[in-house]
Amino acid sequence: MKINSAFGRPVLTALLSTLLVAQAGAQQPERKPVDLYSPKLIAELKQLQAAAMSSDYGFVQLAHLCNNIGPRLSGSPQAQHAVQYVADEMRRLGLDVKLEKVMVPHWVRGVETAELIQFAGQAPKTTQKIVLTALGGSVATPTEGLTADVVVVESFEQLASLGRATIAGKVVLFNARFDKQMAAQGFAMEAYSQAVAYRGAGPSAAARLGAVASLVRSVGGADYRLPHTGGFNYASDAPRIPAAAVASEDADLIAYLTAKGPVRLHLTLTPQTLPDVESFNVIADLKGTEHPEQVIIVSGHLDSWDLGTGAIDDGAGVAVSMQAVQLIKRLGLRPKRTIRMIAWMNEENGLMGGRTYAENQKSQIANHVAAIECDSGAGHPIGFSAHVSTAALEMLRPISAILQASGAGVLRQSQNAEGADVWPLDLAGVPTLAPIQDARTYFNYHHTPADTLDKIVPSELAENAALVTVLAYAIANLPERLPHNQPAQ
Amino acid sequence: MKINSAFGRPVLTALLSTLLVAQAGAQQPERKPVDLYSPKLIAELKQLQAAAMSSDYGFVQLAHLCNNIGPRLSGSPQAQHAVQYVADEMRRLGLDVKLEKVMVPHWVRGVETAELIQFAGQAPKTTQKIVLTALGGSVATPTEGLTADVVVVESFEQLASLGRATIAGKVVLFNARFDKQMAAQGFAMEAYSQAVAYRGAGPSAAARLGAVASLVRSVGGADYRLPHTGGFNYASDAPRIPAAAVASEDADLIAYLTAKGPVRLHLTLTPQTLPDVESFNVIADLKGTEHPEQVIIVSGHLDSWDLGTGAIDDGAGVAVSMQAVQLIKRLGLRPKRTIRMIAWMNEENGLMGGRTYAENQKSQIANHVAAIECDSGAGHPIGFSAHVSTAALEMLRPISAILQASGAGVLRQSQNAEGADVWPLDLAGVPTLAPIQDARTYFNYHHTPADTLDKIVPSELAENAALVTVLAYAIANLPERLPHNQPAQ
Repeated sequence: MKINSAFGRPVLTALLSTLLVAQAGAQQPERKPVDLYSPKLIAELKQLQAAAMSSDYGFVQLAHLCNNIGPRLSGSPQAQHAVQYVADEMRRLGLDVKLEKVMVPHWVRGVETAELIQFAGQAPKTTQKIVLTALGGSVATPTEGLTADVVVVESFEQLASLGRATIAGKVVLFNARFDKQMAAQGFAMEAYSQAVAYRGAGPSAAARLGAVASLVRSVGGADYRLPHTGGFNYASDAPRIPAAAVASEDADLIAYLTAKGPVRLHLTLTPQTLPDVESFNVIADLKGTEHPEQVIIVSGHLDSWDLGTGAIDDGAGVAVSMQAVQLIKRLGLRPKRTIRMIAWMNEENGLMGGRTYAENQKSQIANHVAAIECDSGAGHPIGFSAHVSTAALEMLRPISAILQASGAGVLRQSQNAEGADVWPLDLAGVPTLAPIQDARTYFNYHHTPADTLDKIVPSELAENAALVTVLAYAIANLPERLPHNQPAQ
Repeated sequence: MKINSAFGRPVLTALLSTLLVAQAGAQQPERKPVDLYSPKLIAELKQLQAAAMSSDYGFVQLAHLCNNIGPRLSGSPQAQHAVQYVADEMRRLGLDVKLEKVMVPHWVRGVETAELIQFAGQAPKTTQKIVLTALGGSVATPTEGLTADVVVVESFEQLASLGRATIAGKVVLFNARFDKQMAAQGFAMEAYSQAVAYRGAGPSAAARLGAVASLVRSVGGADYRLPHTGGFNYASDAPRIPAAAVASEDADLIAYLTAKGPVRLHLTLTPQTLPDVESFNVIADLKGTEHPEQVIIVSGHLDSWDLGTGAIDDGAGVAVSMQAVQLIKRLGLRPKRTIRMIAWMNEENGLMGGRTYAENQKSQIANHVAAIECDSGAGHPIGFSAHVSTAALEMLRPISAILQASGAGVLRQSQNAEGADVWPLDLAGVPTLAPIQDARTYFNYHHTPADTLDKIVPSELAENAALVTVLAYAIANLPERLPHNQPAQ
């Protein structure tokens, strides 16, 4: 996911900011933008675009990550193997590869079962199964599980109004719905941002009032009895209680039954939080010929949740980034500035890769010209979004004319970091960019067992690779560098 | 499901037969069909139709079956409780209720796990999880599981061509795809009939060549990592080997990896087949005033698979049937012939309810005027389908004019029994009828954990109730009875 509000990011300012399509502003750069693009550069960009669209390199890489390696949760053997695989592949292409050490959480999912054991109208000696999955980082219940009545709330306000007298000793279910209509209309990220607040802050809000466990209605659009996992943070002022996401059907069932009488739940979650382990960002440089010290990042995150095989989140972003440098190499093109492929580690449950990189590069921030992250799946891109100044935006505009050939001509100026891993760089003033993808179905699969290779349309993955490649190569070769943003306060 | 080819029914003659919309034929009944419908009868039918459309009785019953009682696999406590519940509810309405004893299989799902333990490119010390579920009636693997290489086939022909030398000692995966395009175009039943052959006959076909277990790609349209269970029969000439359905994603994964090298699977299934138990068809009569001995059946099946809560398959059919008699009672109408509500037991894994009823009613077959079964979910009905003679079809045609008010005006003459439970009656010549529903998404959820109440649109359920009520009440009140078909040879 591009912006994970569960990790302390303010919720996206959403609709308004993403709708703000920048107009040619009053502050023009000194040269006209179009003059920055030599005929040679334009020809190279078109050559890269065409090559990307007809290449299956990215899809082959993605298939390997998903199928031959598998789920890549931080700290897992698969994540470590994926680091090795991507590094080897980048070395094979002749890039300058570095593994950057990142200490990451090592959380391991255990048993996760739940059943309603008392409810109105129940058949004798039966239970109703509840499909759920622990949220990443959750503490465990006792091994034999815990048993408590369930209280259903629709909002934080309703939780507060019920208060400790009602909540203490109970399991709280946050039953806010993901807005499917909003997602279907093209505002999937916004629908996600609304609903994910309960996953992020629910457990500690419930715990502060004495709840013994916290459940959240899965944040996603599908109705196939699939729970959607995800990250959250325990607040320092609240007890740490077990936290899980229930499938939307099970949230409906609990809501239906609690409306008819008391509902008692037996919940067993046995995840373990092991000591942090050493992992790595994979950094592969295609050195610039004129300004090797100036860097344009192309990136995705290599870690995934453990339920699926991390195709849309975010094997696709890594594959697209690998394809960008592979294509430039294969065509024998030499960027003037360095294009740096980064496969980030630990976006999902800690963001330690992005944080560590920004910390290590503190003295080099000025040399980071731009950072592209691709982390919203691999749906058809309609263009790209850039958190840049209006002057910088104008410098990028001619790229959109080229991208329009594959229907990706939209250029949006945004007000936020264009990716979670590049967020620390963005705060320091580095322009961040990302494809704008058709994400209408992204949250149907996101963080579920169904995030698998078949969800990727190879031609759409190639369209994303074309976009990222063209964008990175253009920025790397402009005669003027893209200006930084004002760093955040 | 209307026709379950896994239980010995020939596969539907499919496209052609269901497309055969009967034309006004040469053999007209003696009276013009429209003369059979008195103004009073037409007024009563319209009154029932309107009342059905504005009633939530069926939905309330369905919610109780799914949510308060739960999954209702034959022999389970929930199935027995549901029998009691429906019988009590019918008695409460003042119907003449009888429980008809049916001996049913008692199969209980156990542990079901599988993982690929050796495959190309595997991360060290890892496996790939395979999502699967045992087919109903499957024998168990050893408690500790079994381990074997996987062979993927697309057809019975391919299996045969590989032969015993390749298949012996292996796990066979039948990887035929459900035709989603066909389903999306409105031929969901036909798409199902094609693919389900491998579920039904695959296990014994594989076992005959020495396979140690049989897997089938889930027969259904969705891609949400859900396995679709279902019934099958062990052939008498083949060893009984464990049989399961894998999620479509997992079938894809296995096919991808076997193309790269040997794939070894560890499979654990621990279902149990317990002794048959006594269960019941619930039979509730609304007695006819003029010909109480003549019977029109309205029915659905009360048993369901155990993974979901049996909303579309087939709580909906039971709820619609309950609503039909409830409405007629509530409006104080008195049918001339008896309308018999039947909640069948054991459609899914044995068809013992339908078989037992037909056996018990052998001497009364001539008094069975028609049998309606509703077992394809509760999507919007566009009309009804009837396995009847052309003369009988013409007698029914004026009903379609009334049903057209809710967009259900299509009348199709079919060549097969219109439901699995009424199939034994159909073979004996009893006309069988069913709503024609929008089933485009039915097989996305069918036999999966996601067959839950939220899949039902209350207004569409009411449309089905209106159709079944109007149809049953009309047939019960025509001055002439519907003629029987020629019994099957």
